[in-house]
Formats: sequence, C-alpha cells, structure tokens
Amino acid sequence: MVSRLPKITDSDVVSLTERIRNAVGGTGCGGVVIGLSGGIDSAVVAKLCADAIGPENVLCVFMPSRATPAGDYRITKELCDEWGVEYRILDVQPAVDSLTAILTATTDTRLDRGNIVARCRMIVLYNLARKHDRVVMGASNESEIMIGYFTKFGDGACDISPLSGIYKTQVRQMAKLIGIPEEIIKRRPSAGLWEGQTDEEDIGITYDALDPVLYAIASGHSDAEIHNATNVSEDMIAAIRSRVVANEHKRRLPVRP
Amino acid sequence: MVSRLPKITDSDVVSLTERIRNAVGGTGCGGVVIGLSGGIDSAVVAKLCADAIGPENVLCVFMPSRATPAGDYRITKELCDEWGVEYRILDVQPAVDSLTAILTATTDTRLDRGNIVARCRMIVLYNLARKHDRVVMGASNESEIMIGYFTKFGDGACDISPLSGIYKTQVRQMAKLIGIPEEIIKRRPSAGLWEGQTDEEDIGITYDALDPVLYAIASGHSDAEIHNATNVSEDMIAAIRSRVVANEHKRRLPVRP
Repeated sequence: MVSRLPKITDSDVVSLTERIRNAVGGTGCGGVVIGLSGGIDSAVVAKLCADAIGPENVLCVFMPSRATPAGDYRITKELCDEWGVEYRILDVQPAVDSLTAILTATTDTRLDRGNIVARCRMIVLYNLARKHDRVVMGASNESEIMIGYFTKFGDGACDISPLSGIYKTQVRQMAKLIGIPEEIIKRRPSAGLWEGQTDEEDIGITYDALDPVLYAIASGHSDAEIHNATNVSEDMIAAIRSRVVANEHKRRLPVRP
Repeated sequence: MVSRLPKITDSDVVSLTERIRNAVGGTGCGGVVIGLSGGIDSAVVAKLCADAIGPENVLCVFMPSRATPAGDYRITKELCDEWGVEYRILDVQPAVDSLTAILTATTDTRLDRGNIVARCRMIVLYNLARKHDRVVMGASNESEIMIGYFTKFGDGACDISPLSGIYKTQVRQMAKLIGIPEEIIKRRPSAGLWEGQTDEEDIGITYDALDPVLYAIASGHSDAEIHNATNVSEDMIAAIRSRVVANEHKRRLPVRP
C-alpha cells in the first residue's frame, strides 16, 4: 500500500524548531548564516532559525547575480525587517564574471554558469560564517536532495540542512503555518541561476506530482505500485527513479576506494 | 598495546591502484580531473590514476595563485610530460581577487584568503569535470583529514578520495615505491595558501611525530597509552585529539536536525 505524504502540522513545526536549536547548540557556534534568495525554502529556514535561536543570532545574506529579479531585493529586505534579523547584500556577479572568464573556453552552458553562481555564494556564506563564528544553514528540501536538483559544493554545501526529509509540498504547508507571506509561497519555484528559470520546467513535472512519487520511491515501492497510486506515467516514474540513483553521489561523502 | 603505523608495500600500491580503477569505473565517468600542486599528495594521486585508468584519461590542472612558488610551474609540467597525462594551467588569482574584493570588509586574515583560493580551485576542477564527463579526485591524506587540515568544500571537495586512510608518512613511502621524483618527496609540505606556509609550522608538530599519534587515536588508545608509546607530550596529544574532535564536522555530511 503506497502511503500518502504526511501533512505538516503545528507540532511538526514546534519539533523542527526545537531540533534546529539543538543542532546549532551542538556545534558550539553563536549563530547561523543563511543565503536568503526570495524563494520559499530559504525564507522558511530563516524564520525557523529566528524562532529557534532568536533573530539576533541570524544573519541573512542576499547574493544577487545578473539573473536575479529586481523584486527579490525588496522581498528579502522586507522579510528581514519584519523578523528583526540582520540583512546584508553581497553581489556575487563580479566573482562569477571573473571565474567565467578564467573558464571561458570551457564554459558555454547556462548550467555551467549556474554552478559557478551557486559555488560563489557558498564561498561568501562560509567566509561570513568563519568571521562571525557561525554555521551555514542549507535550504535544500528533500525533493531537491533526492533528485539532485542542487549544485554539489554549491547550494548543497552547508553545516546544517534543516529541510532534509521535508518535501517541497510540505515546505509550502510549513510556510503557511509559520506565516511566510503569500507572495512568496505563490511564486514559481526557481533556483535563480538564469533568467526565467523554473524548477518545474527543468525537472519536467510539478512538485505536486513529483513529491508523492519521491516519497513512494523512498518508501521502497515499485514503479508499478507507484503508477497505480499516483497516476503518474510509468515512464516518468522510471525517469525520476533513474535521476534519484544517478545523483546518489551528491548525497554522499567522497568515495574512499 | 599501541601498534605501529603499517609500512606501505608494493602490494598496497597494486591494491590501491586496482581500487581506484574500480571506483572510477563505478561512477560511469570517462576519466578523472586532479588539481596538481607540485606537492607530494597530488603527485601520488595523479601517478596512481595514470597507472589505474591510463594516462590518456587523466587531466591534471595546475592552478597557481599569487602565493605559488615559481618552481611549481616546472615541477608540475615535468611530471605530466613524463607520465603522458594532459596538463593545463588555470590561474585562479583573478577570481580570488574578485571574491576578496566582495568580502573585503570582512576578510582580513590569510586563512580567510586561503579558504577562498582553495574554493576557487574546487570551482575550476568541477567546471572541467562536468565539461569532460570526469570525476574529481581529491588529494587529502588521512593525517590532514583527521585534523581537519583542509578547506571544507575547497580542497576537501572531491568525488573520490584515494588517500583517505593513508597517513602522510605512508604517502611518502608510497611516493618512493611509485617513482615520484626525490625533489618532490623532500619538499616541506605546504598547502600553498600563502607564501612561506608550511603544514608542520601550522600544525605545530612534524608529520613523523603526528602520524603515530593520529593512528593510535584512531585505534582507540588513551592519551596516557599514546604518550608512553610515542614520547609525544600528553599536552600535545590532548591538543591533537581536541583538533580531531573539533573538525569532525568537516568529515561528515551536513547535520539533518
């Protein structure tokens, strides 16, 4: 029997907030650094952290690149003002341009450039974390983690990954429970690595359809069982499963031969 | 009874070469990319890879920064010519300068700048790996891994870590067995992150003294037992153990709260 993805409740929020507090406390560091993008995932992480360890211990860094929509400046600033967390803007585009120039002969796809953007952001976050004795919070959700929809050592790089185990559609439920503005919840999900990018076009399926499939794969069900329970085509289910397997290396430590 | 660190033999070399071949084969990628520095670790990794999968499948990238000694250009080039592996030079200094400028208000130590250098090199290696369908080989040895003497998501970032489990003094033994030039084996170990840097000054103890302590810690011995077996002071042993524990996060996946 393929079971449904559990619905997030207030008690899940309380429990996760508590576990974030313990995880940060366990590192011995005085606070956290978060890359705030204007999207739902990093907004949820920032709000949970503000609730868990106090807004004064949360530093949000907005790191625009050329592909960043102008509205993201306002959205991220408003969130931080409302929550009382520290807000900084660091434009990564000059560093991205410099790296792209070094690699010019070999960098010709937008995915390559997107990976450079994501990794430059990691460099900024870790620089600030070390200077302020803080840890870096990741914002990848379980849907992205399972299909490898993140840059290895880029946005996938963090010390604590609070949305591991929480699928995208569950992040949306959580966002409503903790009062993330409707404007953010309703935005089309985008990694923001190039203009007009949307996750669901990249992945080829909506999160509403994807999440039950991923949850069933993680629960050990066969493609046929999942097809019967979800009405997603068996071809699509097989493609998703391949992607989960092919990106296993992104979820693992380096191989020790 | 504190046992001695095993001496590396020819059969260890054969076995590791075989395991590298299998590890690379297991990824489904056509070859490897290695950041070649002029130091012993990356030279050993490059030679083992050339033996394991054929020199035509090995790409060595020399990524100088302002701190790179001039001799490293010659040394790395000579190695690649001798082994018949592809050699490229990519100067990361412009990218490092660009990132340092972005972070200038908060970047004032050489360690911060060193971390930026190490992470820019990671970006270059992963860019090349993706373009050429290759995996990135790491060159951290077990001594560095245990004490956390590497940059998280910088030189510590790789797909396959062939020197995991092999201590620095064992890497030297291996280097002799596989014919790494004496000039490289005899150099003072340096991460090359700033001019004049040497590992042993940074760490405060020679690898000859450090490795037996680390091996004994890994084998579960107490500070007193290790002190009796090695003659290293108990204070130094306690300091090394603290460092191993404090850097546990560098050897782990992100915490999932």
